[in-house]
Amino acid sequence: MITGKNYIGNNQSAKGNKTYKTFNPKLNLENASVFTEATTGEINETVNLASKTFKEFQNIPGIKKAEFLNAIADEILALDDELIQVYCSETGLPEGRAKGERGRTVGQLRTFADLVIEGSWVEATIDTAIPDRQPMPKSDVRKMMVPLGPVVVFGASNFPLAYSTAGGDTAAALAAGCPVIVKSHPMHAGTGELVSSAIIKAAQRTNMPNGVFSNLNSSGIEVGVQLVEHPGVKAVGFTGSIRGGRALFDLASKREEPIPVFAEMGSINPVIILPNALKERGMQLASTYAKSITLGTGQFCTNPGLLLGIKGEELTSFLNELSGEIVKIEPSCMLHPNIIGAYESNKDRAVSQSGLTITADYDSDVQTNFARQTITTVEGKTFLENPTLHQEVFGPFSMVVQCEDAKQMETIISRLEGQLTGTVISEEGEASHYSDVIAALQNRVGRVIFNGVPTGVEVCPSMLHGGPYPASTDSRFTAVGIHSIKRWVRPLSFQDWPNEILPNELKDENPLEISRLINNENTSRKI
Amino acid sequence: MITGKNYIGNNQSAKGNKTYKTFNPKLNLENASVFTEATTGEINETVNLASKTFKEFQNIPGIKKAEFLNAIADEILALDDELIQVYCSETGLPEGRAKGERGRTVGQLRTFADLVIEGSWVEATIDTAIPDRQPMPKSDVRKMMVPLGPVVVFGASNFPLAYSTAGGDTAAALAAGCPVIVKSHPMHAGTGELVSSAIIKAAQRTNMPNGVFSNLNSSGIEVGVQLVEHPGVKAVGFTGSIRGGRALFDLASKREEPIPVFAEMGSINPVIILPNALKERGMQLASTYAKSITLGTGQFCTNPGLLLGIKGEELTSFLNELSGEIVKIEPSCMLHPNIIGAYESNKDRAVSQSGLTITADYDSDVQTNFARQTITTVEGKTFLENPTLHQEVFGPFSMVVQCEDAKQMETIISRLEGQLTGTVISEEGEASHYSDVIAALQNRVGRVIFNGVPTGVEVCPSMLHGGPYPASTDSRFTAVGIHSIKRWVRPLSFQDWPNEILPNELKDENPLEISRLINNENTSRKI
Repeated sequence: MITGKNYIGNNQSAKGNKTYKTFNPKLNLENASVFTEATTGEINETVNLASKTFKEFQNIPGIKKAEFLNAIADEILALDDELIQVYCSETGLPEGRAKGERGRTVGQLRTFADLVIEGSWVEATIDTAIPDRQPMPKSDVRKMMVPLGPVVVFGASNFPLAYSTAGGDTAAALAAGCPVIVKSHPMHAGTGELVSSAIIKAAQRTNMPNGVFSNLNSSGIEVGVQLVEHPGVKAVGFTGSIRGGRALFDLASKREEPIPVFAEMGSINPVIILPNALKERGMQLASTYAKSITLGTGQFCTNPGLLLGIKGEELTSFLNELSGEIVKIEPSCMLHPNIIGAYESNKDRAVSQSGLTITADYDSDVQTNFARQTITTVEGKTFLENPTLHQEVFGPFSMVVQCEDAKQMETIISRLEGQLTGTVISEEGEASHYSDVIAALQNRVGRVIFNGVPTGVEVCPSMLHGGPYPASTDSRFTAVGIHSIKRWVRPLSFQDWPNEILPNELKDENPLEISRLINNENTSRKI
Repeated sequence: MITGKNYIGNNQSAKGNKTYKTFNPKLNLENASVFTEATTGEINETVNLASKTFKEFQNIPGIKKAEFLNAIADEILALDDELIQVYCSETGLPEGRAKGERGRTVGQLRTFADLVIEGSWVEATIDTAIPDRQPMPKSDVRKMMVPLGPVVVFGASNFPLAYSTAGGDTAAALAAGCPVIVKSHPMHAGTGELVSSAIIKAAQRTNMPNGVFSNLNSSGIEVGVQLVEHPGVKAVGFTGSIRGGRALFDLASKREEPIPVFAEMGSINPVIILPNALKERGMQLASTYAKSITLGTGQFCTNPGLLLGIKGEELTSFLNELSGEIVKIEPSCMLHPNIIGAYESNKDRAVSQSGLTITADYDSDVQTNFARQTITTVEGKTFLENPTLHQEVFGPFSMVVQCEDAKQMETIISRLEGQLTGTVISEEGEASHYSDVIAALQNRVGRVIFNGVPTGVEVCPSMLHGGPYPASTDSRFTAVGIHSIKRWVRPLSFQDWPNEILPNELKDENPLEISRLINNENTSRKI
């Protein structure tokens, strides 16, 4: 049952008088539940509780954290149909997507549980003493990762489960030993509360300290601002717009004690279609890309918003085919009237630029909040000269850039802002003739894809979801996969520390049997 | 021979008309060489050259980078006595220290050479495809670290070799594949130019692309500001004051594309002396700490500026002994009149605070620019209530805080700003009775030391030199040891990328024979 209250640790609280509702975009109606925004008092109470809890939670063994993470997964599944229904009513997304995303969310939680049970993720590094070294004895020094402290998570509008309340950021932070405070996304506050109730149940069931997780409601920016500025908060995870992510980054950077903000933000995900590929399978590519551009109503951060080819007959045929294919696809609902509003205005901004031509625009009637997919095209030179054309249009929109030649393509790629992904479509052996273009692409993105589509982010250790700014605020970290835990930890060194008071990860006898770097050798042996 | 010119890659340039000289603090005289500050034109030329060079340098194999790094070490040694003399004339530091620091610098360069020859530092991670996975096939995804781009290094006043021109930041960045631009430290510009000449010789001898290294002179802040704000610069390393590091961090955070700044800054390095240790060996500790506080005229970032004990007879005896011991030590020269000027004024600020008592102050005549060592003491409550007393006094100065009890000691520790180090002095078995104090210490520092002194930073993989702000601007990284390379790299993922155009580190056949994480298993095998 949705109460509309905040979770301050295990306690529900609603002291404020600012309330709001979520919206069902398919029905074009407000949902019934009323949510109460957190007050300054509640925010302070939450952060203070998290800071206090951190002292205990940071030392909880991996096996206990894993129980907690697995229990969260179980409790999310136990929410069953109620969660799926609320999810759909708050997003306009279909049930299949809801279930798929729930599966991914549960999978992420269990992956982090496995990671902390295994335990080697702490990167234990040991250099043993050399007491008789000349001219100075060498101390025993040991190092491992320790959690940063309370982490604030801002969920994504487009992933109400996998990148929100119990999503990747939360799972990684809890696995690291950081208490989590979620700033609930206002568009899916009900989904957020249900998932929060699952986390709280799991925390109580596995005897986690009160305050390991909190969920604060907010319809505007005030709650988020106060959280990021609170001295007790030690790091921030965010998934959303460049404007939102940058605002949080700026706040965090201006603090007396600056804190890291990992914001995964905008991307237009350039796709380079090389000439032979265009020639050999332009028609098939047009069909594949029509589907990728409209997948999830274009609301994936990896949506291909920019397709680059070399000008000519084949590119024209591809463009015509893509334009023809995409309007055959049934339009679908966007997440919220604000999201479709932004889609329409960003599209207007793009198409009002001189030199941009619309080649496909779904023109039949559509239901309210359903998005019309659009394909546009522009000359390479025009694109290069007008940075407005480089800006993301979040939704089922893409732009085909007709480059003069490979050199111009390379220049365009190298002048793009940082991107999450870059894709190369190539026939066998063709890519090696475009090594400068591909090198330029690698320097601008976090992930390069060969002969595929950028939509779809596999959750695996080798996934990098992030990239040069503004794809993310720090290209040195990923938002997806086990290595995303590194955002929330720091190394701590112990010099000549007695074995009995060392953390288990660093003890001589290696009681956790983890892999460690001992005197520059990877090993699971004791000392 | 010192020319006073800038190095823009391999070319020497001095187009500006702003000049300056370095200073010999021991002789209290300016040195002869005249240095020409870089102009805006020279700065732009340098960064543009570095950006161009990056395209080539980022792909140079580890074995070639290692040749370059080892050649730098060789060329620094070949500078021989000229380097040592110039070093001493610009710092007032003794020859032994110059030679020791040179050894460390050369050692760091060779360590990074070994690291990139071995090659596993790129953290190659491979998840192989599962084409028949249901409901969706799994792609082949591979990930490795790639360099960020041109890095600007600001050297330290107190480490003219090991943390300056060819110091830890430069060695790590070059090893990573990032071109380096050094903003030469004005206090040791001659040392910097000589080392730069060694780097340039090494670069030419090992056929590195022109622009892999540059050195720009500057006596003020303008050159540094322009470098950090230049869009071609992708990361910054800094060692120095909180004010300087924070200013660069703020500039970098405000850029259109924010870039990471790793600044290693201030620290007062708290030392906790537990009661039994004080009782059993207070006298010996007093002598040890008198030496540690005055080591290098107190000009180490790990200098113990804060000693905490529990009030009582034993602490009083320790304080008296420490005060007696420290004034027996001959005062020594500080790096520069500005440094001793800051020492004196910071000491004045501290001792003017109500409740602080001076217990030792070297009062015989000293030579100009020689520092008088000082010990002070204060009640725990007074220290807790006055944050001015928490500020660093860079130099041979320390404060003994007399805590009421362990609880007050814990409170004091938990309210300190972030520190590089924290030390616990304990008799056997004693520390376990102070677990709250020690836990608080671990949360405020980058390295904890048991029964030692914080001065002395071993260069080894398990060393963490850094810590919570303001010890550094990002506690997730270290400035010392092989893992410091992580500051200058980001992960890049390759999805379904053809084997023949994959980097060698990720190829099926593992031609570099590096250790990789393949399907979650650490292995050096082929695929």
